[in-house]
Amino acid sequence: MNQDYIIPNEWSIIEEGFNAERVKSSESLFSIGNGAMGQRANFEETYTGSTFQGSYIAGVYYPDKTRVGWWKNGYPEYFAKVLNAPNWIGINVFVNDEALDLNTCKKVENFRRELNMQEGWLSRSFKATLPNNVEIKVEAKRFLSLDLDELGVIQYSVTPISSDAKITFQPYLDSGIHNEDSNWDDQFWNTLKVTQDGEHAFIEAHTMKTYFHTCTFMQSEVFINSAKQAIQPEVEQSENKISFSYSVDVKENETFTIHKFGGYTVDRNHEIDELVAVAKNVLKEGISRGFDALLEQQKQAWAKIWEMADITIDGDVKAQQGIRFNILQLNHTYLGKDARLNIGPKGFTGEKYGGSTYWDTEAYCIPFYMATKDQQVARNLLEYRYNHLDRAIENAEKLGFTNGAALYPMVTMNGEECHNEWEITFEEIHRNGAIAFAIYNYHRYTNDYSYIPEKGLEVLIGIARFWYQRVNFSTAKNKYVMLGVTGPNEYENNINNNWYTNYIAKWCIDYALENIEKVKTEYTSDYERIMSKVSLSEDEMQSMKKVADNMYFPYSEEHNVFLQQDGFLDKELISVADLDPSQRPINQKWSWDRILRSPYIKQADTLQGFYFFEDHFTQEELERHFDFYEPFTVHESSLSPCVHSIQAAKLGRMEQAYTFYLRTSRLDLDDYNKEVEEGLHITSMAGTWMSIVEGFGGMRVKNDTLSFEPRIPEQWDGYSFKVNFRGQIVKVNVSHSETQFELEGNNDLEILVNNNKVTVKPHSLVTI
Amino acid sequence: MNQDYIIPNEWSIIEEGFNAERVKSSESLFSIGNGAMGQRANFEETYTGSTFQGSYIAGVYYPDKTRVGWWKNGYPEYFAKVLNAPNWIGINVFVNDEALDLNTCKKVENFRRELNMQEGWLSRSFKATLPNNVEIKVEAKRFLSLDLDELGVIQYSVTPISSDAKITFQPYLDSGIHNEDSNWDDQFWNTLKVTQDGEHAFIEAHTMKTYFHTCTFMQSEVFINSAKQAIQPEVEQSENKISFSYSVDVKENETFTIHKFGGYTVDRNHEIDELVAVAKNVLKEGISRGFDALLEQQKQAWAKIWEMADITIDGDVKAQQGIRFNILQLNHTYLGKDARLNIGPKGFTGEKYGGSTYWDTEAYCIPFYMATKDQQVARNLLEYRYNHLDRAIENAEKLGFTNGAALYPMVTMNGEECHNEWEITFEEIHRNGAIAFAIYNYHRYTNDYSYIPEKGLEVLIGIARFWYQRVNFSTAKNKYVMLGVTGPNEYENNINNNWYTNYIAKWCIDYALENIEKVKTEYTSDYERIMSKVSLSEDEMQSMKKVADNMYFPYSEEHNVFLQQDGFLDKELISVADLDPSQRPINQKWSWDRILRSPYIKQADTLQGFYFFEDHFTQEELERHFDFYEPFTVHESSLSPCVHSIQAAKLGRMEQAYTFYLRTSRLDLDDYNKEVEEGLHITSMAGTWMSIVEGFGGMRVKNDTLSFEPRIPEQWDGYSFKVNFRGQIVKVNVSHSETQFELEGNNDLEILVNNNKVTVKPHSLVTI
Repeated sequence: MNQDYIIPNEWSIIEEGFNAERVKSSESLFSIGNGAMGQRANFEETYTGSTFQGSYIAGVYYPDKTRVGWWKNGYPEYFAKVLNAPNWIGINVFVNDEALDLNTCKKVENFRRELNMQEGWLSRSFKATLPNNVEIKVEAKRFLSLDLDELGVIQYSVTPISSDAKITFQPYLDSGIHNEDSNWDDQFWNTLKVTQDGEHAFIEAHTMKTYFHTCTFMQSEVFINSAKQAIQPEVEQSENKISFSYSVDVKENETFTIHKFGGYTVDRNHEIDELVAVAKNVLKEGISRGFDALLEQQKQAWAKIWEMADITIDGDVKAQQGIRFNILQLNHTYLGKDARLNIGPKGFTGEKYGGSTYWDTEAYCIPFYMATKDQQVARNLLEYRYNHLDRAIENAEKLGFTNGAALYPMVTMNGEECHNEWEITFEEIHRNGAIAFAIYNYHRYTNDYSYIPEKGLEVLIGIARFWYQRVNFSTAKNKYVMLGVTGPNEYENNINNNWYTNYIAKWCIDYALENIEKVKTEYTSDYERIMSKVSLSEDEMQSMKKVADNMYFPYSEEHNVFLQQDGFLDKELISVADLDPSQRPINQKWSWDRILRSPYIKQADTLQGFYFFEDHFTQEELERHFDFYEPFTVHESSLSPCVHSIQAAKLGRMEQAYTFYLRTSRLDLDDYNKEVEEGLHITSMAGTWMSIVEGFGGMRVKNDTLSFEPRIPEQWDGYSFKVNFRGQIVKVNVSHSETQFELEGNNDLEILVNNNKVTVKPHSLVTI
Repeated sequence: MNQDYIIPNEWSIIEEGFNAERVKSSESLFSIGNGAMGQRANFEETYTGSTFQGSYIAGVYYPDKTRVGWWKNGYPEYFAKVLNAPNWIGINVFVNDEALDLNTCKKVENFRRELNMQEGWLSRSFKATLPNNVEIKVEAKRFLSLDLDELGVIQYSVTPISSDAKITFQPYLDSGIHNEDSNWDDQFWNTLKVTQDGEHAFIEAHTMKTYFHTCTFMQSEVFINSAKQAIQPEVEQSENKISFSYSVDVKENETFTIHKFGGYTVDRNHEIDELVAVAKNVLKEGISRGFDALLEQQKQAWAKIWEMADITIDGDVKAQQGIRFNILQLNHTYLGKDARLNIGPKGFTGEKYGGSTYWDTEAYCIPFYMATKDQQVARNLLEYRYNHLDRAIENAEKLGFTNGAALYPMVTMNGEECHNEWEITFEEIHRNGAIAFAIYNYHRYTNDYSYIPEKGLEVLIGIARFWYQRVNFSTAKNKYVMLGVTGPNEYENNINNNWYTNYIAKWCIDYALENIEKVKTEYTSDYERIMSKVSLSEDEMQSMKKVADNMYFPYSEEHNVFLQQDGFLDKELISVADLDPSQRPINQKWSWDRILRSPYIKQADTLQGFYFFEDHFTQEELERHFDFYEPFTVHESSLSPCVHSIQAAKLGRMEQAYTFYLRTSRLDLDDYNKEVEEGLHITSMAGTWMSIVEGFGGMRVKNDTLSFEPRIPEQWDGYSFKVNFRGQIVKVNVSHSETQFELEGNNDLEILVNNNKVTVKPHSLVTI
């Protein structure tokens, strides 16, 4: 609906002109975050038009009572919800005592919003004529500090331009907020205390049920032009709210400015009874640095992120803007500092998909974080699952598994399952495989084996046990089969022998057994510690091996391909190309049964397996499976095009690879799915990164060596990216004629380029 | 929880002793109804203990907004709910101005409840000591008139037995009621007018959204001993309520009695603006006949029902009580007078399974009504579906079907789908088959072909078209397959080629084509009318025939049985007998995925097909399939044991047949499923009847001839039943040594007994 209004720009997201219809979309697109908190780009001043207010604190959630038509055993009682947190950004603005509200202004001109990706701030400016005919100019800029991640800062200026005017800034805190996404209209916050201490204000509140204690805080300074004003504010205080009013009679063309410092302290990081004291210190530190210095530090911090994570694209501004937007928003969401946090599919930009963590993290996000951050970040993401292992075991027990079998939840905040559709919650169990694969992938990429004896092996054993118990022996097939699953392709439910699931299950068992052996030989004390904890007998291992060795994989002799599941060939195999376009997207046009009995694939399923385990298959096998399955794929998941882009690139089909790339990179900026109002698709943004680095750049780790097979879409003049490979930064610069490699650090690095060994020396360009 | 407190008695359901824990169970068990309305056995006087208030009017429902976790295309927006109607039975009782409330009495003695099945009334008596120490004796009797089916009558007497006392009866009407089963706590009724006219009171109200207009009415008479008293009542009136108070100082051991006449007039039967006038007439008629005469007429009306429908069992009082209770409650629910009504799974005894009509009606209830009522009753049930044909076509269109294909809803009140679990709503499509089968069954039993050219053929064509469009051709199998269905065994979801569904689909097409041909030759004008309406081309019929002729049926060569569905043999085939008893019922102990991948069968599936189409299969085939499937059947549906009882009897396994019979006949009386509080299992009661008549009696219609193969469980001395076969009443009396047949009417009837021809002459006993 609001497509294509974002102005192409290499480093900024820009909107010009005020359009009330676009407010909710822009609130999503211009979202900011710093890993510890994030917020939609809601206006600071009152806005009575249609808006979706959202401010979120990492790790603070609410267990909403589950809503379901018909209850089934094993469903979670609660569904953890991302929680709209108390508002600290609000600044009511009055002009001659009339409220500034863009929804009621007589005229709004020169409206401009900018999300400066390079420097990490959001700004907004406009000229408005209020109902009382006073004309003012407004400029606002805000950011969430990367440096002091409990702090956000706003600079908000009003200049009367048609006459003198009394201007009032009324910064406030408000914990009487509600959630858009609430099953029962419960109140989610309980306000404990609203306090004022000189120019500071604090609201202490805790979430209902989960008792996350937070302190929301603020302090402000006001200026005429650049001269600080010592105004005693009027204080208003109620049960859930506190505001300070600063009024000044401002001369025409003079500027009244407020610097508002605010944010949250939370009990994840501090003792409950110190939340206010810590908040005071944060404010003190913020005020003493001041807005300008904090902004400068923000620019430097973002420069560091970009230094490592930037991808440049020459000759295609929209593609450039798109990839940077994806990298920016991933960094808004998760910076990898805290193993208790993870990457929610909508990050801090909306409430949908209430739980925080999906298999998206392991399958799509970890490669991005491994390559653009220190390896500790990826390790933190692995540890997140290690820390939830006990819950995963409990979760499996609820479904009847025993003896330490672990089933990680489909959606979770704290390790407990948060989702309740039986075909997903109970059956989309392949997620377990991705969690094991991430351990393998981490070791493959970083060569840090220590994680496995320390923590990973326990996870691998729990997962292997789950698969071992989940299969059953089919006398008819004389093989182990896995009945009643949903694969990555969620357009098939409760199917038997999903090839991807069976394959990754077998792999998980093999990989667990292989690592048990290795840890036994090389990490004796870890081995003993783990074995005494998990009591894994030789017998059980033998039985597991038997399952792995005799797993059933559906195969078609006729087509010479693995079948996505039993019975796939009974379908009416009409390709997507031959489908009436008016019938698409099928998830909006067709009833669920029709989707299920169709051959149409929501996202890579068999091909996801070929992506994870590409060295298990020949290029020719890949080609055959790609040619068989891609024609039936509707890509109605945001996670589908990236895998197909990578596979198409691998097959040298650059035109197709580029088409898939386009579908993923500007998904939100161009509002491809007509739902950007609800928030951004954060996890699929990592897939966009993979499309370039792994797809076009052809980056892999082969036999412990970093390897590239660079290709470039015709539409681009060139592109570059950097990766952190085992502490060394490799910069890759691809054009149509050549590829350049550059290395930071002190040691040579041997890499493979199109399977040829190349030695890259520090700070000297290698051109191929 | 409240099992086994019902006192065995051949003709009555009796409870003795007051136990607050049992109140809700008894409210279900002692429910009364007359086809037009029905009510739970709530107390007339105030009761502040745990109770489930329910009074229901046939055909009056509310479209509650659907509740669902995740919405899927094609789900109904509304879910029609059985609706708790305004209360007309209430009589507040005050003793020296203290309210009588069994929950607060100091003592309750001699509490006795009786549901007299033979005569069709409910009574209650007790002695109570109130908190004010006054002791009273209470006797209450009520019934819903079969004769005047808008009228109910209550006789309520209080006798102070320890002293004189002022007794007040305050009969009232109340439309400010709520539904137990409400998704959003909406108010379901809008009260329009509360009026009083002399001793009459009326509440006019309509349901929200559906605008069913009703008038709830009452009028009372009071007596000291048997002398009518002319007391001017005190009237209290509010927005939703009106009450009349009759106070009398009653001497010790004298009895103060009220006769309350009340009920509903509804706009299904009258003009809205005449509802009050009609109600006045009903009251006038009721009062003029008086309580005693009405009760006498009630006895006569029930005698007529029993005359036709009674089953006697000698030597087993509990079995006798059980079968009569089932027959009673079926007659409470549906008497067949109105083709706009149908048989809800809980009748008028509770709110669960909110919609009224399931495939239960066609598969289980029609045989009962065909044999125990005039054949017009069964025809009315068929017409109910004919009247919903357009809605069934719309319903199919929502799911993407075209050209007049009809999919009847899983659950409905008015022809629209009322259920939203995708695996049921969209996939449990075999219901369509039962609706066609009922047409066949009706013709087979009654020999009334006229229904087919008049109405049935259009239904058969819509259903055949649905099946024809629902299959697809599998190149792999070179057959037509049906993917993504749920069979009668709901412990399998979204399966491929469910044998029962494929079989009945093929049969439906064949049967439709056969009848098109017959109507074409024999009912030319009907044929032309229908064909011009449905535009069925020769081509389409040829294509349909091709589907029917080439339908795929999964079969196991190894076991020599049809497979319930594709892949059934991949399951771990451990029989129920080998299952740990602590794991049962599996629907309470296991998660849904575990149930789905197990071999366990909720209710007859393949065997349901063998029941419907028994003449398509040999006895030996039946035996093989019974022996293969029954061991995996957990009978966790109330509709399962009856079919198995019939099949076991057919196989001469009387011990097993009897065991299955026991599971069905006292399901509610013994609260087998621990849920009788929520209401009775009305539709499965027809299955109990079938177990005796078709199972033990072996009744069939073979080549247009009524046929019996009588068997008797060892535990019984004898049993008898009657059936109406084409206007002739045949009474069958079975003992261990012989079977007697007796015939009412004027003509001889040739029947088959154990496949031998026997001629039964009117009013002369044939003993075999």
